[in-house]
Amino acid sequence: MKATFLYGAGDVRVETVPDPVIQQPTDAIVRTVRACVCGSDLHPYHSMPHSEHGNPMGHELIGVVEEVGAAVTSLRPGDFVIAPFAFQDNTCAFCREGFQTSCPHGGWYGTPQTGGLQAELARIPQADGSLVKVPDVDPAGADPSLLASLLTLSDVYLTGYHAAHMGRVEPGRTVTVIGDGAVGLSAVLASRTMGAERIILMGRHTSRTDLGREWGATDVVAERGAEGIAKVMDLTGGEGSHVVLEAVGHMPAYEQSYGVVRPGGVISRVGVPQYEEAPIGFGSLFGKNATLTGGPAPVRAYLEPAIRQVLEGEIDPGRVFDRSVGIDDVPAGYAAMDAREALKVMVEF
Amino acid sequence: MKATFLYGAGDVRVETVPDPVIQQPTDAIVRTVRACVCGSDLHPYHSMPHSEHGNPMGHELIGVVEEVGAAVTSLRPGDFVIAPFAFQDNTCAFCREGFQTSCPHGGWYGTPQTGGLQAELARIPQADGSLVKVPDVDPAGADPSLLASLLTLSDVYLTGYHAAHMGRVEPGRTVTVIGDGAVGLSAVLASRTMGAERIILMGRHTSRTDLGREWGATDVVAERGAEGIAKVMDLTGGEGSHVVLEAVGHMPAYEQSYGVVRPGGVISRVGVPQYEEAPIGFGSLFGKNATLTGGPAPVRAYLEPAIRQVLEGEIDPGRVFDRSVGIDDVPAGYAAMDAREALKVMVEF
Repeated sequence: MKATFLYGAGDVRVETVPDPVIQQPTDAIVRTVRACVCGSDLHPYHSMPHSEHGNPMGHELIGVVEEVGAAVTSLRPGDFVIAPFAFQDNTCAFCREGFQTSCPHGGWYGTPQTGGLQAELARIPQADGSLVKVPDVDPAGADPSLLASLLTLSDVYLTGYHAAHMGRVEPGRTVTVIGDGAVGLSAVLASRTMGAERIILMGRHTSRTDLGREWGATDVVAERGAEGIAKVMDLTGGEGSHVVLEAVGHMPAYEQSYGVVRPGGVISRVGVPQYEEAPIGFGSLFGKNATLTGGPAPVRAYLEPAIRQVLEGEIDPGRVFDRSVGIDDVPAGYAAMDAREALKVMVEF
Repeated sequence: MKATFLYGAGDVRVETVPDPVIQQPTDAIVRTVRACVCGSDLHPYHSMPHSEHGNPMGHELIGVVEEVGAAVTSLRPGDFVIAPFAFQDNTCAFCREGFQTSCPHGGWYGTPQTGGLQAELARIPQADGSLVKVPDVDPAGADPSLLASLLTLSDVYLTGYHAAHMGRVEPGRTVTVIGDGAVGLSAVLASRTMGAERIILMGRHTSRTDLGREWGATDVVAERGAEGIAKVMDLTGGEGSHVVLEAVGHMPAYEQSYGVVRPGGVISRVGVPQYEEAPIGFGSLFGKNATLTGGPAPVRAYLEPAIRQVLEGEIDPGRVFDRSVGIDDVPAGYAAMDAREALKVMVEF
């Protein structure tokens, strides 16, 4: 099969490798229908040192089950499924509490052990806990926009949803979303579905913030840093935002977050932090009783209701995809996202 | 009147100064019945550079209203009141949302403008919003233990309560309390009233942890650092604590907090952080979706129900006081708390 590997910063290659095989009785093999490139893939794309051995890439996929291990009970070949971006048993204490990304029997794709999902076939560990069937949809005949929206449930939309969920967005709240990437826009859409009264989107790419407005952003702030903070404070009558959804992961976005959060408010981060230490003392979080929350989205926890929302046409998160490539053109897809020519790139098989 | 001033590290003095007077029509003057020394007073007691001008000290008080300004409507001379450790109008947007410590018309005691409360008389700004009457108690004839418990509602007990409240303690939760000072013990007591299933108290002063056990601690961990973390992880079957209440404020206590918090759990800080930057990235908070919350307790938000609990004998938080001094002996009180000979020192007038 063909699969995607990163050999170092800027060096994405599509190679032909042996097909994956069942290794554990809890595994399944899935044939990919759609995969995609994630904003978080751009971090190693910028910084990975050159390596002799390519790192398998990709963690978002919808596909058709090809084969299941002997212990898999809920799936069979031919099932059309969504794979959350992390795998999990979905039965342990943490999974039951809704934090599947901390499952002790779970893990991440894109390692030599589990491979990546920007590939024609994928081995899915803990398949019963990790794959969710999409009922009554035949991917061969499905509307491409439906497939696009279902693909976002693998990561990007439900990561935005997780931000809003952990931030306790509810009717009457003012929400500020930092970042106009695909996750930030998804956070806008999710906040709208939760009834946020006002949604301020901080971003400066008009084509993106326009989609944000369609999805519910009531205000767009293009300024950054101190100017951006001042603008949000102005918009909120000097009081600040009840909820801040941080969908970037860089320090300036975090600094904006505690700059605009209201006393007693919540900062919810889903951009993977590219820092370890940051201000949390009296002058940033503590003095105003600000809450900091968020982390890797336990997509599995949110999948069934989100599939229903997509199938019933309540949400159309697939609109984040503005470019499609075949597997051979995945490197061009990375380059387009890196250059911000594309918001999010889909890989069609 | 006599009042307490800090001139530098270790240099507490009680001096005779002019009585405070009404400055604003919203002020009240209160004659102190009981005041006390706070753990947070020990921070400047350790570190304040020598100054020619003493800094007024103290922010906890119960007393009797002596005089009210022309705009004060809810109080009159003779009322027996509790003063929360911060003053506020209790009408602004932040106050209505329960975060009175962020009131734009509020502020802190212990400044040259407002004075301190370790004093025979105090000027209370925003008196309608800042003083709460204790119904049907005559302080002259009251049981000393009742007065002690009422005094804790000025700060220490309700700071522990705030930690538990922000940490969302509820039945079925495992709570770890870091710190066996008066706030930590109060957090134990508050967690018990909220129905916590298990309360692990991290502290190594047996006389204090014994009171913690009486108040509901089910386990005591004397170890600190990596050893202490390992012990709590053992006690929780390797899963960690749903809620961590951090009642110290130093970095090692924060490090213990993210070491023992369970995936998806909450760290709630009420120890005033003696640091600004700290780890919050993938390896500390983000990776396990841990929430960080807490700040200065909005005591005013919690006062009425807590007064009822004390008057009805449901809680006895006044037991944190293990020493009493008169106003002239306040410096000895600081020294006793600093040497950990006393848990918390009351000042009787």
